[in-house]
Amino acid sequence: MAGEPKPEQGPEPKPVTAEQTVVEEELLRKVVESFAGTPDPRLKQIMTSLVHHLHAFARDVRLTEEEWNAGIAFLTAVGNITDDRRQEFILLSDVLGLSMQTININNEKVGDATEATVFGPFFLEDAPLIDIGGDIAGGAPGEPCWIEGSVTDLAGAPVPGARIEVWEADEDGFYDVQYSDGRLAGRAHLFADDAGRYSFWGITPTPYPIPDDGPVGAMLAATGRSPIRCAHLHFMVTAPRMRPLITHIFVEGDERLEIGDSVFGVKDSLIKRFESQPAGTATPDGRAAEGTWSRSRFDIVLAPAPGGAA
Amino acid sequence: MAGEPKPEQGPEPKPVTAEQTVVEEELLRKVVESFAGTPDPRLKQIMTSLVHHLHAFARDVRLTEEEWNAGIAFLTAVGNITDDRRQEFILLSDVLGLSMQTININNEKVGDATEATVFGPFFLEDAPLIDIGGDIAGGAPGEPCWIEGSVTDLAGAPVPGARIEVWEADEDGFYDVQYSDGRLAGRAHLFADDAGRYSFWGITPTPYPIPDDGPVGAMLAATGRSPIRCAHLHFMVTAPRMRPLITHIFVEGDERLEIGDSVFGVKDSLIKRFESQPAGTATPDGRAAEGTWSRSRFDIVLAPAPGGAA
Repeated sequence: MAGEPKPEQGPEPKPVTAEQTVVEEELLRKVVESFAGTPDPRLKQIMTSLVHHLHAFARDVRLTEEEWNAGIAFLTAVGNITDDRRQEFILLSDVLGLSMQTININNEKVGDATEATVFGPFFLEDAPLIDIGGDIAGGAPGEPCWIEGSVTDLAGAPVPGARIEVWEADEDGFYDVQYSDGRLAGRAHLFADDAGRYSFWGITPTPYPIPDDGPVGAMLAATGRSPIRCAHLHFMVTAPRMRPLITHIFVEGDERLEIGDSVFGVKDSLIKRFESQPAGTATPDGRAAEGTWSRSRFDIVLAPAPGGAA
Repeated sequence: MAGEPKPEQGPEPKPVTAEQTVVEEELLRKVVESFAGTPDPRLKQIMTSLVHHLHAFARDVRLTEEEWNAGIAFLTAVGNITDDRRQEFILLSDVLGLSMQTININNEKVGDATEATVFGPFFLEDAPLIDIGGDIAGGAPGEPCWIEGSVTDLAGAPVPGARIEVWEADEDGFYDVQYSDGRLAGRAHLFADDAGRYSFWGITPTPYPIPDDGPVGAMLAATGRSPIRCAHLHFMVTAPRMRPLITHIFVEGDERLEIGDSVFGVKDSLIKRFESQPAGTATPDGRAAEGTWSRSRFDIVLAPAPGGAA
C-alpha cells in the first residue's frame, strides 16, 4: 500500500523476541487497565484508544530513549511559543493532517453538499456586516476580486438569509490579526438575499506561508516540506436547520496546488476558476475598475443539520 | 482481549461508509506522501508511523471537533505549566506508560540482568560521593534504612568499582530539589569495592504522589486514577563495557503495589524485602540505632553493553 510505513528505508529493524513482546504487551495491558475506572465512558474510550496507538507507535519504530527525549523537547518548544496570539499546537495538528482528518470525520459528504475544509486560526467573531455587493477588503492591499453565488439546500431550493462569513489574507500573505496595529480588514459577514444569492468584493487570494519561525516550521524544514498554503478564501455559512459549513475556495491554476497545501485543506471540488479581468473592464456593479480585477463564482450547497430536517 | 478498547461502553459508533473511508484514506495518503522527501530515513520512518497512528486514533474514536479542541486546550495547558523546574510533558508521558514502554524497548531483558525502570525527573548530576557504608540522607527526614548488595556480570563475576548513584524522596514524599531552600539530601554516589560489594544508609522509602496540581493531575482525577507512586529507591549503575542500568527497588508489602504505580514502574523482580528492625537492634556497622530502622538487600546484575563485550 502506498500509505504504509517503509521500514526498509530506516535502519535495520531489530527482531523483537517473543519474551520481549510479552513484556511490552503486559505493560500496555496495565496502562489500559488503569483507565478502567474512568466514570465517563467516552473519555474511557478515547484514553484507551490513545494509549493503544501511542504505544503501537513507540513499539513499531522501536523508539530510542534519545528520540523520546527529542520528542519531549519538541513538545516543550511547541508549548513555549504558544500564547494568546500564537497557537503552535493547532499548527502542529494542521501540518500532520489531524485537523483536516477531524474535519473529514465530522463532515461526511452528503449528496452534492459543498465540502468542508480546515477552519484555521484567523477567524474573528465580530467581523463587520456588509450589504450584498459590498467590500470586505477594508483597506487590505490586493487586486479586487468579485465573488458571487447562491446558497441552496440539497434539493436546489434557495436558503434565503443564510449568514456568510468571509475572511482572507492580503496580497502580502497576512491576515489583519497578524499586524500589530489593530486593523480590521479582509473580513466581513453578509446575508444571502430572498433568492439565496450573494455577492461581494474581496481581493484575489494569493499563497502564503504558515508561521514557520517556530518548532513546527523547523519540523517542516527537517522533513523537506513547504510551509506554503495554496491561495484561498475562507467561508463559514450558517442557516437554521442546516449543517454549518466551514470551507475555503482555492484558485484554479495556482501552481502551489501541484506542490500541495501545507495543511492538506485542498479538495478538488473547492478549486474554483478565478477569471482575470484586464484593467478598465466593466465590473458587475458598475464600480470603476482602474486596474486589473478578477471574478469567481461559488455556489454553496448546505446539508441538513444532523437530526434536523428529515 | 483484555487490552482492547471497548467501544460498546461509549456512545453508539456511527457506521463509516465506504465513500467516507476513501476520503479519510486519501487524506492519510497525502499526509504520508508529504514526508516522502525527508532526507533522514529514520526521521521519515518516525513521522510516517506517527501520522499513521495519530490518524488511526482520530478515526477509531471518530474524534469530534469539540474533543479535538479539548485536546488542543489540554496540550496548551501542559505547555503553559512546563518550565525549568517542572516538566509536565514528561509527567504526561509517564502516566500514559510511554516512558516505561520506551525503557522496555531499549532495555530488553538479558539473562538474569537486573531489570530497568523509569528514570524520573529527580536525578542530579552532582550528588555527593560517599564511602561504602556511608549515609546518603544528608539530613533528609525518615527512618534509617541499610541497603547492601553486590554488583556482578551475567556470569556472576564481580564488577569492582561499579559506580552506583542512589536517590530517593524523604518521608514526606519530597525530593531535595522540590524544596526551595537549595538543600542537597537523599542522594549520593559510591563505588563498589574490589569484590563488587556495596552498602549504604538511606531512608526507608515511602509512597508519594507525582505533582498533581496541573493538567496531568486533572486528567488522572477525571479518569479515576491515583497519582501515587509506590515506595521506591532509585539506582543508576554504570561500569565500563556494561549496559548502564537505571532502575528502582520497591518495598515488598507496600499496599500501593496492589493499587498500581502511577507511572507503571513496578516489575516483580524489583520488589525487595525491607526488614523492619526494632529500636535498639544492633546495626551492621555498629552505628547506634536509637529508633527503628530497616534493612534490605539488592544484588545488581549488569548486562554487557550492546556491541561491547562479546
